[in-house]
Amino acid sequence: MCGSLGRVSGSLLQVKVFITPRKGILDPQGRAVEGSLKSLGFDCVATVRVGRYITIDLDAQSTAEAGAMVKKMCDQLLANPNIEDYRFELEPTHESSTTLPERSDR
Amino acid sequence: MCGSLGRVSGSLLQVKVFITPRKGILDPQGRAVEGSLKSLGFDCVATVRVGRYITIDLDAQSTAEAGAMVKKMCDQLLANPNIEDYRFELEPTHESSTTLPERSDR
Repeated sequence: MCGSLGRVSGSLLQVKVFITPRKGILDPQGRAVEGSLKSLGFDCVATVRVGRYITIDLDAQSTAEAGAMVKKMCDQLLANPNIEDYRFELEPTHESSTTLPERSDR
Repeated sequence: MCGSLGRVSGSLLQVKVFITPRKGILDPQGRAVEGSLKSLGFDCVATVRVGRYITIDLDAQSTAEAGAMVKKMCDQLLANPNIEDYRFELEPTHESSTTLPERSDR
């Protein structure tokens, strides 16, 4: 799935995936953290949402190829499409940093 | 703990906290995701690390006050100082976006 015509090593990218509970969906973990923070004295806290932050080191030919691949990874495994949103950033590790944000459009 | 001289409402900030397993610490969840991605055909994946992504809406007088407060939250509750690193960004929700990255220095 990595490259279409046989495997040629590309450049190493670091992908940062941010997965968050969808707006309107109950987030019990976030509620629990919110309550704990308030009980510790942080009464200025309004809302807490807890999601996942996944970093992936990836060998890809281009950021476009990597972006398409990471979207598939999110749709097939990393995020729950029913209750979560995701976005991701790609950072070439040997070049200047480039971000390619992507949002689930479901 | 929010403001030093009584409670005066400040501006609403959104804080994004990124918590990651410390380099060198075994991350079984990351290993499991890595294996699953490879078994789905994503054989270009090198390393996966799974952390937490926490967003906090916060009422604070200044980004400096908010930054100090979020550092305390991380140290006291959000991150495990023995095995995790954290950093965070502050984004005023009513002004132009400002980021204030902070790293655990342990």
